[in-house]
Amino acid sequence: MVIALLTDFGDFYPGVMKGVIRKITESEVIDITHIITPQNVLEGAFLLYHSYRYFPEGTVFVAVVDPGVGGDRRAVAVRTTNYWFVGPDNGLIYPAASDDGIKEIYLIKNSISEISGSISTTFHGRDIFAPAAALIKEGKIHERYFEKTESGLEALELFEFEVGGDEIRCLVPYIDRFGNAVTNIKKDVLKELNAREFWFDGVRIPLVERYEDVEVGEPLAIIGSFETLELSVREGNFSEKYNVRGRRLRLRWS
Amino acid sequence: MVIALLTDFGDFYPGVMKGVIRKITESEVIDITHIITPQNVLEGAFLLYHSYRYFPEGTVFVAVVDPGVGGDRRAVAVRTTNYWFVGPDNGLIYPAASDDGIKEIYLIKNSISEISGSISTTFHGRDIFAPAAALIKEGKIHERYFEKTESGLEALELFEFEVGGDEIRCLVPYIDRFGNAVTNIKKDVLKELNAREFWFDGVRIPLVERYEDVEVGEPLAIIGSFETLELSVREGNFSEKYNVRGRRLRLRWS
Amino acid sequence: MVIALLTDFGDFYPGVMKGVIRKITESEVIDITHIITPQNVLEGAFLLYHSYRYFPEGTVFVAVVDPGVGGDRRAVAVRTTNYWFVGPDNGLIYPAASDDGIKEIYLIKNSISEISGSISTTFHGRDIFAPAAALIKEGKIHERYFEKTESGLEALELFEFEVGGDEIRCLVPYIDRFGNAVTNIKKDVLKELNAREFWFDGVRIPLVERYEDVEVGEPLAIIGSFETLELSVREGNFSEKYNVRGRRLRLRWS
Repeated sequence: MVIALLTDFGDFYPGVMKGVIRKITESEVIDITHIITPQNVLEGAFLLYHSYRYFPEGTVFVAVVDPGVGGDRRAVAVRTTNYWFVGPDNGLIYPAASDDGIKEIYLIKNSISEISGSISTTFHGRDIFAPAAALIKEGKIHERYFEKTESGLEALELFEFEVGGDEIRCLVPYIDRFGNAVTNIKKDVLKELNAREFWFDGVRIPLVERYEDVEVGEPLAIIGSFETLELSVREGNFSEKYNVRGRRLRLRWS
Repeated sequence: MVIALLTDFGDFYPGVMKGVIRKITESEVIDITHIITPQNVLEGAFLLYHSYRYFPEGTVFVAVVDPGVGGDRRAVAVRTTNYWFVGPDNGLIYPAASDDGIKEIYLIKNSISEISGSISTTFHGRDIFAPAAALIKEGKIHERYFEKTESGLEALELFEFEVGGDEIRCLVPYIDRFGNAVTNIKKDVLKELNAREFWFDGVRIPLVERYEDVEVGEPLAIIGSFETLELSVREGNFSEKYNVRGRRLRLRWS
Repeated sequence: MVIALLTDFGDFYPGVMKGVIRKITESEVIDITHIITPQNVLEGAFLLYHSYRYFPEGTVFVAVVDPGVGGDRRAVAVRTTNYWFVGPDNGLIYPAASDDGIKEIYLIKNSISEISGSISTTFHGRDIFAPAAALIKEGKIHERYFEKTESGLEALELFEFEVGGDEIRCLVPYIDRFGNAVTNIKKDVLKELNAREFWFDGVRIPLVERYEDVEVGEPLAIIGSFETLELSVREGNFSEKYNVRGRRLRLRWS
């Protein structure tokens, strides 16, 4: 069985989490990403939702994007139809867990930090979530550290957008290393709109099926690997070239 | 057996590839790098060439720097004397594979994407190359997904350079995190030139045997770990300090 | 048994080290970090000291931040009460190794590079330290490559600071991805000072127990996960906002 990590921790902290996990269990650990934009719960939730299904059954996902660490938000472990999700209850794991089908929700008690021997108010990845994942992987969901709850998870909606006239207001949950602006407009919505081209800041962006349909350096819109609308530049960087800041976008379409 | 990854994907996408691989096979996966300069096939080919020999026999390399993804370039799996190389046929795997000795070339069919359950025109790392590598590692090179071909690989020459008078025009396939400018001038070429110092933009750069041969902060030329000429600053950053942009370099020498 | 890596190598070079290790032994390899600030031995030592204890007994740590590579500094392998530490003898491994209790020190001979088949004066991570760690993990500490020594390690003090009047001069060994400035002022020192707030460049920074004790965007001082004083901005970036450059800090306190 695999433990998979998705955080905004950058470097070092994930390494410590792996030490903690490896002290408890021999589980293989796979990094999904550790460079979620700091504190960006939407981005984390979007990437977890779009990656979990590619992992083997039984994978325990540890997702930590946690602006409320040390505060009152709950720490949870969620058993779904095929997986486990461990993390703060702030919306981060909701889209993936509810998509797979939530079966049981456990609160993780702070006392679990006695396993790593450290309790901080700033690094629950090490003190709470890593030991919880390792114990789950070992099948040791004991009452000392886990308490079943009937109250549901904090919800978060990934695919909200507005259409008004010829304008779409949508989100850009993820900008990847190539500068592709990955929107939350799903493939089937695009079909309904019957869109063939978009305008962003006065620039015309044709909807194409493959990068090669435009010249190198030209902008394009495409159904990307998330099965949502992506804005790209062929062999270039859309977000830099067209100055996509923030995570909200207005597009005109026709 | 090991699967080793080299891509320009940055974060997230490699994590998904590992999920796909791990769903098919229990193989260990090692990251060589995922921050090849986006679309820079030369850099990827150079780094693959200089790393493959350090891996155990039987390693399956998955290399993806793929500006032509979704277009007409072929997807290939190449068996060499000691290894397998999987990736787009755009020159990326040619130097390493031909160095080790090409034995067989297979085309990978798009139908292989039925394994991950996704087919995109933008992320063949997930949909084509990861499943191909996992199947190869399992010894399942079935006709359903692989088709042997007799036509050779797209070639790419790593070590081309020009010498004219006292000037060398060479490439800088890689700039590492320390700002070392790694050129494609091989050790034996340097010996032939009998060079003892270089000039770059009017700056004199002595050829030394170890960093300590110059003062901290001073530039130096050295045979680096690639066994080619490298330009460095002792405990500093050559490429920033001397403004190395692009990947072509003119050096005077004596 | 685990081999854990901590370097300033960035990308690519750590992948090659893993190939070298994996060719010799089937050991699992865990990355602690590879983005130590280039040449910053203090940062590396601080992070190694604060992570080693979270790893399972018997872990072999390979730590390489090595401005003196190719020069006269010694290459060492140190057996401590519970672990092994391999790296340059420049202070980097001293705090962790001496904290765990040094039992034996071995010099690693350059001849060990015959295993990887490469010897460079620039990349001892590949040619010296990776093979040494793999052999140690295999229990093969043979005289051909290792020579026991009685002379101690180069020392390095992590927790030096000065208090004068109402001013503390301390170090910032680590700035994390969130911009938290992690100082070397230990929890118990803070208690002695009986400090309740700090001033940095005229800005008042309250000492709090959790991020939520200040408003979003406000600065705060907190005992962080290193059990030292950290300067943060709630859901923001302290080091960017207050322009923390370099690694020395003056704080007023009361």
